[in-house]
Amino acid sequence: MQSITALRTRIRSGDLTPDGALALTREAIAAREPEIGAFVTLAPEPRAQREGPLAGIAVAVKDIIDTADMPTQMGSAIYEGWRPKGDATVVAALRRAGATIIGKSTTTAFASADPTRTRNPHRSGRTPGGSSAGSAAAVGGGMVPLSLGTQTGGSIIRPASFCGAAAIKPSFRLIPTVGVKCLAWTLDTVGLFAATVPDLAAALEAVAGRAVSEGQTRPPRFGVVRQDFAGAPDPEAEAALAEAIARVSRAGADVRDLAVPSSIGEGWEVQPTIMDYESAQSLAWESEVAGNRLPPNIAAGVSAGRATAPADYDEARRTANRARREAKVLFAEVDAILTYSAPGIAPDGHGSTGDPRYNRLWTLLGTPCVNVPGLRGPDDMPIGIQVVAPFARDAVALDAAAFVEAAIAP
Amino acid sequence: MQSITALRTRIRSGDLTPDGALALTREAIAAREPEIGAFVTLAPEPRAQREGPLAGIAVAVKDIIDTADMPTQMGSAIYEGWRPKGDATVVAALRRAGATIIGKSTTTAFASADPTRTRNPHRSGRTPGGSSAGSAAAVGGGMVPLSLGTQTGGSIIRPASFCGAAAIKPSFRLIPTVGVKCLAWTLDTVGLFAATVPDLAAALEAVAGRAVSEGQTRPPRFGVVRQDFAGAPDPEAEAALAEAIARVSRAGADVRDLAVPSSIGEGWEVQPTIMDYESAQSLAWESEVAGNRLPPNIAAGVSAGRATAPADYDEARRTANRARREAKVLFAEVDAILTYSAPGIAPDGHGSTGDPRYNRLWTLLGTPCVNVPGLRGPDDMPIGIQVVAPFARDAVALDAAAFVEAAIAP
Repeated sequence: MQSITALRTRIRSGDLTPDGALALTREAIAAREPEIGAFVTLAPEPRAQREGPLAGIAVAVKDIIDTADMPTQMGSAIYEGWRPKGDATVVAALRRAGATIIGKSTTTAFASADPTRTRNPHRSGRTPGGSSAGSAAAVGGGMVPLSLGTQTGGSIIRPASFCGAAAIKPSFRLIPTVGVKCLAWTLDTVGLFAATVPDLAAALEAVAGRAVSEGQTRPPRFGVVRQDFAGAPDPEAEAALAEAIARVSRAGADVRDLAVPSSIGEGWEVQPTIMDYESAQSLAWESEVAGNRLPPNIAAGVSAGRATAPADYDEARRTANRARREAKVLFAEVDAILTYSAPGIAPDGHGSTGDPRYNRLWTLLGTPCVNVPGLRGPDDMPIGIQVVAPFARDAVALDAAAFVEAAIAP
Repeated sequence: MQSITALRTRIRSGDLTPDGALALTREAIAAREPEIGAFVTLAPEPRAQREGPLAGIAVAVKDIIDTADMPTQMGSAIYEGWRPKGDATVVAALRRAGATIIGKSTTTAFASADPTRTRNPHRSGRTPGGSSAGSAAAVGGGMVPLSLGTQTGGSIIRPASFCGAAAIKPSFRLIPTVGVKCLAWTLDTVGLFAATVPDLAAALEAVAGRAVSEGQTRPPRFGVVRQDFAGAPDPEAEAALAEAIARVSRAGADVRDLAVPSSIGEGWEVQPTIMDYESAQSLAWESEVAGNRLPPNIAAGVSAGRATAPADYDEARRTANRARREAKVLFAEVDAILTYSAPGIAPDGHGSTGDPRYNRLWTLLGTPCVNVPGLRGPDDMPIGIQVVAPFARDAVALDAAAFVEAAIAP
């Protein structure tokens, strides 16, 4: 994979220019894109900027995020060739930080669960996950050092785990969603994919305009959450979690098991109700004017949302708010949570983007989540570990994830 | 003014067709628009629908709200001629309810405070207020029975007071902002203007798809809030509030004075910090690519937002969240609050859109607010009374406002 911090070190030392870094990225795309198919659009004449913390860093932008200079097609024929007026706030922030938008990456239609044409960069017969399929595959496949995704259910952490990329779903609204096609306004979260956890920290600091590392002074205290409410994982996910626990313990971290109180676990149950109800409203125009052009998964979500009574939505929102208020009890005696990023390795075939069941609760809670890559499961496929920290403690999430990443490194 | 409920009664009785209602609206626009200038775009061939609770009802849509069939120009030369792809969620909801989008109404640039060309329908030398200038003037001037506005500071209730229209800023997010140009994502609220409070209730029920009246069984208990933290109003606003208090008391309502705890009043102080910080991010592309085309008020807001440290924004958000949590104590012994809609009648001249200082706290709190028209101040200008209810109690706000409206009717 291409590492932001490694490229920056070379650029700062004079070993590489921003133009040279961009050329490396373009070569990697030329080599791997025909097999992976992560891009919808490639910038015709990308140029490196000379200044800024991300000068020379090329970014793949999920194709539900507006760009002034390339189409934004939402993974849907309804938006074929559509050109928004301006850049989304996060894209403007990337350009301000010196980055180059290298292309638009595939997304399931409207960031739901209908598979794209993108292949898993490690095994082309397997799914890259979704909805941020192209962004996960572009980083995991070593084509770009940075990409943008969004998560409403499990659309960042899960594909990152499947593709072997590091990724962060930051605290809700740390990165604004202005200029990002809305699926569900109380859940949609913009996040980043990169090669390593320090790469994520470097990029998030540049995008959010604030420090996101506190510097570790002692090994973190971890709580292990197995999310029983979501059912058991595949054996390889349990094995990966056990391996991570053993490694961080050996590295000096305190690790204990945590039970999730039912008041918080109930948030997991209502997340689909909120997502579907809001998506039916967000996609009102699309579903009413061109409903027969919506693929089956998003069409089913919109239908479910339309059938949801406002009172049931209100009740789900109250349950969600209660879970958010009480989430801090999870962190009373630990710095961060360790849990599964996904139920297993990327599933075989391209009929599904995999299961977001271990991501939904954290999206609903708005807590920062990091996928830590590095472990492998069956078929030599990557399998990630999810690190979760309290709301607004993105620096804690990244520092704890960096500790895990270092501990599981071979 | 054109009343939704009156038009519906005539349509249901067979006295008027939806086409006939639309023709009345078009005649009124032809008669008054040259003087008022409330519209940016008029639908070239508007058609009435035959079915739905708003069949025959023409709606003016603030020009920061996306429409698939007309430009959406944000009150800014940057968006001249801009055509969005689809309808905003609220526009789709209006069409589904049978309404006809008759045109796009003027807005200050990006819903900030730079005056538009629109004149006050009661005195053309006075401001209609802003930012929802055209929507307030179109209803207050009797041109349309319904219009859409947005409020981030005081952009619905204040122009409604100045133009003599009824208006509701519903609970935060009761009407989704999907497809509405973002100014500040934690504050932006979509609302409605109509001739009377029952007209608002009829329209809100159709748009939100849920009941918004509980039916009054007894006179409401009112608390009077004078918002001392925002300074004293002009004498005419105090006189109007005193008149309203006298009238509702005579009609049987219990009225008592309420003090606003400082923990809530502090929300008023931080609202501009939050608005400016978020607007600097929301308008990042516009200000970076075409900053010299931003008019002075929004440019100043963006500059202030850029100069705000993230830590100061975070602190302001914590203050806001504390105020929201504690807001319910205001309603411990009353059903609704009576307060000023604006510091006085619409100011003379067109250099300013007036002062939102009595609206900012309630926007920040996300509580439903209704402007009740009917009273008059100096120069025979309208002056409104603001009725506020607890979050998510839009029905209480509308029922209490209907009581006030009936009590102050001549």
